Amino acid sequence: MARRSHRKKRDANAIRQLPFNNVTNPYPPMEVLNDSQVQKIVTTALTVLESHGMRFMHDESRRLLRQAGANVDDSQQMVRIDRDLVLEKIAQAPSEFTLSARNPDHDLKIGANNIVFTSVGGPAFCTDLDQGRRPGTYENMCDYLKLVQSLNIVHQEGGGAFEAMDLPPESRHLDLYLAQSTLLDKNAQAYALGRTRTIDCIEMTCIAHGIDRTELEKRPYILAIINTNSPRQLDVPMSEAVIELALAGQVSCITPFTMAGFMSPVTLAGTLVQQTAEILAVATLAQAVRPGAPVIYGSFASNIDMQTGAPALGTPEYTKMSFASCQIARCLGLPSRSSNTTTSNCADAQSAYESEMSLWGSVMGHANLVNHAAGWLESGLTASFEKLMLDAEMLQMMAETLKAIEVSDEELALDAISNVEPGGHHFMTEHTLARYETAFYPSMLSTRQNFETWSEQGQQDATMRANTMWKQLLNEYERPAIEPDKEEALKDYVARRKREIATP
Amino acid sequence: MARRSHRKKRDANAIRQLPFNNVTNPYPPMEVLNDSQVQKIVTTALTVLESHGMRFMHDESRRLLRQAGANVDDSQQMVRIDRDLVLEKIAQAPSEFTLSARNPDHDLKIGANNIVFTSVGGPAFCTDLDQGRRPGTYENMCDYLKLVQSLNIVHQEGGGAFEAMDLPPESRHLDLYLAQSTLLDKNAQAYALGRTRTIDCIEMTCIAHGIDRTELEKRPYILAIINTNSPRQLDVPMSEAVIELALAGQVSCITPFTMAGFMSPVTLAGTLVQQTAEILAVATLAQAVRPGAPVIYGSFASNIDMQTGAPALGTPEYTKMSFASCQIARCLGLPSRSSNTTTSNCADAQSAYESEMSLWGSVMGHANLVNHAAGWLESGLTASFEKLMLDAEMLQMMAETLKAIEVSDEELALDAISNVEPGGHHFMTEHTLARYETAFYPSMLSTRQNFETWSEQGQQDATMRANTMWKQLLNEYERPAIEPDKEEALKDYVARRKREIATP
Repeated sequence: MARRSHRKKRDANAIRQLPFNNVTNPYPPMEVLNDSQVQKIVTTALTVLESHGMRFMHDESRRLLRQAGANVDDSQQMVRIDRDLVLEKIAQAPSEFTLSARNPDHDLKIGANNIVFTSVGGPAFCTDLDQGRRPGTYENMCDYLKLVQSLNIVHQEGGGAFEAMDLPPESRHLDLYLAQSTLLDKNAQAYALGRTRTIDCIEMTCIAHGIDRTELEKRPYILAIINTNSPRQLDVPMSEAVIELALAGQVSCITPFTMAGFMSPVTLAGTLVQQTAEILAVATLAQAVRPGAPVIYGSFASNIDMQTGAPALGTPEYTKMSFASCQIARCLGLPSRSSNTTTSNCADAQSAYESEMSLWGSVMGHANLVNHAAGWLESGLTASFEKLMLDAEMLQMMAETLKAIEVSDEELALDAISNVEPGGHHFMTEHTLARYETAFYPSMLSTRQNFETWSEQGQQDATMRANTMWKQLLNEYERPAIEPDKEEALKDYVARRKREIATP
Repeated sequence: MARRSHRKKRDANAIRQLPFNNVTNPYPPMEVLNDSQVQKIVTTALTVLESHGMRFMHDESRRLLRQAGANVDDSQQMVRIDRDLVLEKIAQAPSEFTLSARNPDHDLKIGANNIVFTSVGGPAFCTDLDQGRRPGTYENMCDYLKLVQSLNIVHQEGGGAFEAMDLPPESRHLDLYLAQSTLLDKNAQAYALGRTRTIDCIEMTCIAHGIDRTELEKRPYILAIINTNSPRQLDVPMSEAVIELALAGQVSCITPFTMAGFMSPVTLAGTLVQQTAEILAVATLAQAVRPGAPVIYGSFASNIDMQTGAPALGTPEYTKMSFASCQIARCLGLPSRSSNTTTSNCADAQSAYESEMSLWGSVMGHANLVNHAAGWLESGLTASFEKLMLDAEMLQMMAETLKAIEVSDEELALDAISNVEPGGHHFMTEHTLARYETAFYPSMLSTRQNFETWSEQGQQDATMRANTMWKQLLNEYERPAIEPDKEEALKDYVARRKREIATP
C-alpha cells in the first residue's frame, strides 16, 4: 500500500510476530470416534485396570493406592483398581485450571477450548545449520530459552529444550531452573525425574514467585510431564514426582509413551485402551495423595514403522489417535495433551508436513496442551534452532485459522462489491484502505517474494531464512525484569544445593 | 519383523504406494460458519446478482441469459438476474455425478463426501533440482504426465502440468490432448480456452472412448476449469467454453480467482459473497444452455500480501475460506472444488506447511475436487517434479487419516494387553504378527532412518529424496493399453486439425 508511517519504515527489518495471546478454538472439535466408541475404549481401559492392573515399582505408591482401596500384590508390584474407585477418584480432578507464570500476563488457561503451545523439552542433542547436530551446552540451552521467551506464540517453556551436556547430570536441573526463572517470565515445565529434582523445582518456584509453600499449594504453578514405562508400568522416579507434585497441588501431565506395535497393541483402539488405562492408574495415585490434584490426560500414541521397528511420528495414525485421545479426555472430564512430532532428521519438508499433521490433530481435536509444539526433530532426539522458527510460523498460522470469520453487513461488503467496476480492483478503495493493515495474517518467516527478487537475494529456502531469523531474534532478546533479591535468592539456593549434592 | 516373503525381498527398492482408490471422508465436515452466516453470504450474493449484476463480454452468452429471463444491458454488457431465477436454475444442476475415465477403474465420483485429487495444471514454468526453473518442453510435460499416471493417489490429471513452450500456442492443446489420451488412462482436465479448443477436446474424448457425440452427452467425461475475471466479469473464451461444455453435458468447474484485497473485498465474508455471486452467474448460464449441465462450485479465495501486493496462498485466510466455501457449496447443492496452494518458490518447508494448510482446509471441509493437489509451486507459476512427489506423500497421509479407527473387540485388544507383561513389549506377539504388514500407513517418501544411517546415506532431505524417487518412478512407468485404431484416429485428428489451423 502507498502510505506507511515513519515508525514502520524504520522497523522494516523487524521480525513481525503476533502478540502473546491465549489461543482458544471457537470451532467444534474434530471427532473421529462416535460416543459409543469412546465409551467402549474407556470401559475396556477400566477392565484392564480392574482385572489385570498396572505395575507400580515404587513401594510408597503401592502403599498409598492400597490405602485408597486398590488391590495390591506387593510380590509382583501389581495394583488392580476397581472401576468405581477409579471413576470416583478421577471425578475429583479439575477439568480446568490456570497455571501461573512469573509474569501474570503469561498465565495459562488449561482446559475447555484453550490451547497452550509449549516449546520442545527433553532431547539429547541440539542442532542448527551452522554447527550441525551435537550435544548441547548450557550456553546453547540458554540461547534456546531466550528464543522461547522472545517468540510470543510459544506460551510455555518445555522443561529444558535439550540436555546441557557440559554440566553434571546430578545438578543440571538446578541450572535449568535458574535459567528458566531468570531468562523467561513465561511458565516453564519442571524436570521431574525423581523426588529431589521435583522438590527443588517447588522450592525455586516459591522463591521466583515470592511465595511460601502454603501459598503455592493454593493453585498450580508447576506442570511436569510424567511418562509411564509402557506397557502398564510406572517406575520409581516418576512415581516420586507424581507424589510430590500432587502433595503440592501441582500438575502431573500423565503421558504414556505408546508406539503401537511395540509398547502397546498394534491396533489403534488397543493402543488407546492401554494409554487410557495407564493414565487412569497414575491419575488415581495423584488423587489418592491429594484429592483435586490437577492431572492432564497426555497422549503420545503413535506407531512404529513395522519394516524397521523405528518409531514413526507425525503419521496419519498419530493424527487420528490425537483426535481420539482428546475425545477420551473430554469423556473423562480431564484436560488433554498432545504434541507436535516428526521423525525427520532435519528441518526439511518432511519435518514440516509431519508437524502439520500433528498440529491439526492436536489443535482441531482441542488438545489443551500442545507439547513440543516448537523445535522438535528426529523423533525427539534433537532440538533444532531452525525448526523452532518454522514451528512458530506454523503455530501462528494455526492461531490465525482459529479466528472466526466475521459475518456482519460491513464484512459482507455489498457496497464495496457494487462500487468496484467489473474487471476493476479493490486495491486502493476506501473499504480496503480502512482495513488493510490488519486484514490478513502477516507472515513471519514465509516469503511472498516473486521468483526474481527471491533469486536476487540468494534463493534462501525457509530453513535458511529461519537460521538468519533466530540469530536476529537472539540478538534482540530482552531479559524480563526480576527483583534482584529474588534472583540472588535463586542463585543462593542453587549454590547451596550444589554443595549438598557434591557432599552427600 | 522377522519373516518377509521372497517377492518382498526382491522388491525392497520398489516405491511403496497405496493402491488407486476412491477417497471419501467419513467424518463430519469441519465448519467455520454457522447456518445463518452461510445463508447471509448466499443471500448477499443473490443481491449482488439481482441489483448489480455481472459483466458477460460474450454477446451470445448475454443473448442466452436474456432468453432465460435475465435483465441484460448490452451497452454495458451487464447481466442482472433475479434471485428466484438463479435459484431455480441452480436447482437443476446435479449435486453428484460420475466422471468417466478411459480406464473405468479410474472413474471419479464427484460430490457427497467423495474427494478427488488432481495434479497441477496451468503453470508457465517447470522445475526440478537438476535443471532448475525453466520454460517446459513437450517432452518435459509428457514426463510429468507419466508420473501423474504412475502415482495412484493422484486421481485426475490437471489439464497439462505446465505449458509446452516449444510448441506453437495455437495448436498446443492438441498435443496435450494426445498425450493425455495415450500416456494416461485416468481422467484428464480439458484446456478450455475458447470454443475450438473445447470442441477439440470433446471430439478427441469421443475418439479415445470409442463413442459418438450422442453417447458422450449422456454422462460427464470432461471437466474444465472456468475462471471468471474477478471482479464480476466473464470473458469471451471462458464463456465459449461454458457453452460448449454445457451443450455436451460436460462439467464446468467455475472458479473465480479472488485474492481478497485486490480482485475482491479485503474482508473474507465479502470475498465469499463475490465468489458466490460470480459462480451463480456462470452456473445460471450453463443451466440456460442445458438444464442439468453439471457445474462445480470452485473456490480459489485467498488474499494478497498487503505489504507488497503479492498473492499469498496456503494462508490461514485461504484455509478458512476453503472450509467456508465448501459450506456454501453444500447449501447450494453443488459439488465443491478447492486447491493445494503455496507461495513458496521452491519445494521447501514453507511449501510443505502451506500445502498442508490448504489440504486440511480442502479435505476436512469436504471439498469434492482438490485441484492442483500435487506439484504446484510459486503461486501457480511453476510445476515442480519434486513437489509432485512430496504432495503425493501428503495426499496419501490425508487419505489414511480418513480411514476411520475400527473399534471392535479384536481391535480393543484386551487379550493382547493382558498377555504382555508390564514393561514388556508387543513386538513379536501373535496379535501383532497377525496384523503388522497392514497395520500402519507405509510411508512412500518420508524417512524413519535414524540419524546415523541417514548420515551414512548422505543426509538427503525430503526434496532430494523426491528427486531420486521421481526419476525411478519415471523409469518404471508403464504405458496403459490403448487400442491401436483409437491411437491412430487420435493422431489423425491432431494432424488434420493442425493442418486446418496452419491454413485458416
